[in-house]
Amino acid sequence: MFTNNTIIRVRYSETDRMGYSYYGNYATYFEVARVEALRSLGINYKTLEDEGILLPVVEYSIRFIKPAFYDDELLIRTIIPTRPTVRARFEYETLRGEQLLNKAWTELVFFDKISEKPVRCPLHLEKLLSPFFPT
Amino acid sequence: MFTNNTIIRVRYSETDRMGYSYYGNYATYFEVARVEALRSLGINYKTLEDEGILLPVVEYSIRFIKPAFYDDELLIRTIIPTRPTVRARFEYETLRGEQLLNKAWTELVFFDKISEKPVRCPLHLEKLLSPFFPT
Amino acid sequence: MFTNNTIIRVRYSETDRMGYSYYGNYATYFEVARVEALRSLGINYKTLEDEGILLPVVEYSIRFIKPAFYDDELLIRTIIPTRPTVRARFEYETLRGEQLLNKAWTELVFFDKISEKPVRCPLHLEKLLSPFFPT
Amino acid sequence: MFTNNTIIRVRYSETDRMGYSYYGNYATYFEVARVEALRSLGINYKTLEDEGILLPVVEYSIRFIKPAFYDDELLIRTIIPTRPTVRARFEYETLRGEQLLNKAWTELVFFDKISEKPVRCPLHLEKLLSPFFPT
Repeated sequence: MFTNNTIIRVRYSETDRMGYSYYGNYATYFEVARVEALRSLGINYKTLEDEGILLPVVEYSIRFIKPAFYDDELLIRTIIPTRPTVRARFEYETLRGEQLLNKAWTELVFFDKISEKPVRCPLHLEKLLSPFFPT
Repeated sequence: MFTNNTIIRVRYSETDRMGYSYYGNYATYFEVARVEALRSLGINYKTLEDEGILLPVVEYSIRFIKPAFYDDELLIRTIIPTRPTVRARFEYETLRGEQLLNKAWTELVFFDKISEKPVRCPLHLEKLLSPFFPT
Repeated sequence: MFTNNTIIRVRYSETDRMGYSYYGNYATYFEVARVEALRSLGINYKTLEDEGILLPVVEYSIRFIKPAFYDDELLIRTIIPTRPTVRARFEYETLRGEQLLNKAWTELVFFDKISEKPVRCPLHLEKLLSPFFPT
Repeated sequence: MFTNNTIIRVRYSETDRMGYSYYGNYATYFEVARVEALRSLGINYKTLEDEGILLPVVEYSIRFIKPAFYDDELLIRTIIPTRPTVRARFEYETLRGEQLLNKAWTELVFFDKISEKPVRCPLHLEKLLSPFFPT
């Protein structure tokens, strides 16, 4: 299991008339958290994409417990629970202090830009993740 | 079962560097489709909210099949599959022509702004939906 | 002078905690209005871009008079005041009924994707606009 | 003159199909930068708003020189050039390393939520800014 924490502060533009951070924003927050999780491993997602490997989301699911408000500092905990293959699963928890605001997960597919086909997780990423998934 | 169709055109601001409509936008598209579905029934969501009934999303799940691109005209089919109680379920299908791009659903809760407690579906909405759910 | 009207309804995701449509959204609204103005002339902006002519914004200026609120139907009036050359100017007025909510303008540059250089307004667009700018 | 620097990293959701950070995002970036500038002075904008003083933007103008791309780390330099009165002016420069990407400014109005009227800059903010504007 691999875990990484990222801090995100709720922007004014992200609030809605209920005063909440709009429920659609979490897809963006999790994408930022996911990229920071990869960066902490030494993987630059931009470079990966420039080298022809896209990582589109194929499934996304979120359960809301409490809302976040303007200027809240949120901690997004990103978890890679299993060794990526052609797919990679990321799980997320959004916390404000001790409070759990929501839980979510995404499934992504490694996708070759040229062949337009799913491909295995790139070898260098597999190696970097390997210590977190001992057999 | 109640069904409503809404057309949404993908905006430039909604595209990402992959050329796709960003995966996080669908939460917004479905919210627009949901509000239009209610409007087609004679319910103005804004009025509902101004009268003190909020309808926050408590669960949201989406499975992506194909991406949408800039300027695509998308048909969002909104389905209310069951009679709302304290919760309301909405299901969504995004189509471009004959192609199904994704399927999603949300669970929402009727929520009283003053008491800050979940409440039953307002009576006038229940009555308007009633013909679609014969017993 | 060329003029076109586009209707935009304020989405929930676009509101902020003040209850206003966030001031940053107008850049998106004007871009939608601009594209619809071109479409009304028979120009598909997507096709233009796919053919290698980008039209990035180089200047944008807006003066706010009144805010727009959730679910408001806004009329965006788009004006091309002068014959485009290497640059094109678009002016905008946002109206809610009779009320003028704001006034804005953008300057855009025709830009060749391959040469990465500014270019003259494409001939077919110049011809379509020509009747609106008699000499 | 008061100056503050804020770092913002371009999110995937903020890119468009040109590969640029969408031109409309800068309104959000500048709002984040403005709030961080105030925070560096000891002013929490959220508290200000909760105490009944809104600070809506009444004018916004931006001149683009170069685009920002995905994952770019941008430095937003926020400048308050003159002592705020009923209005406050903020100027912005977006830099990527040594490169100036754009220059912008906003005019904001101190606005009383209850009276719905413009008001003078709150005294405690005036005092905190005072050292930067010697007479």
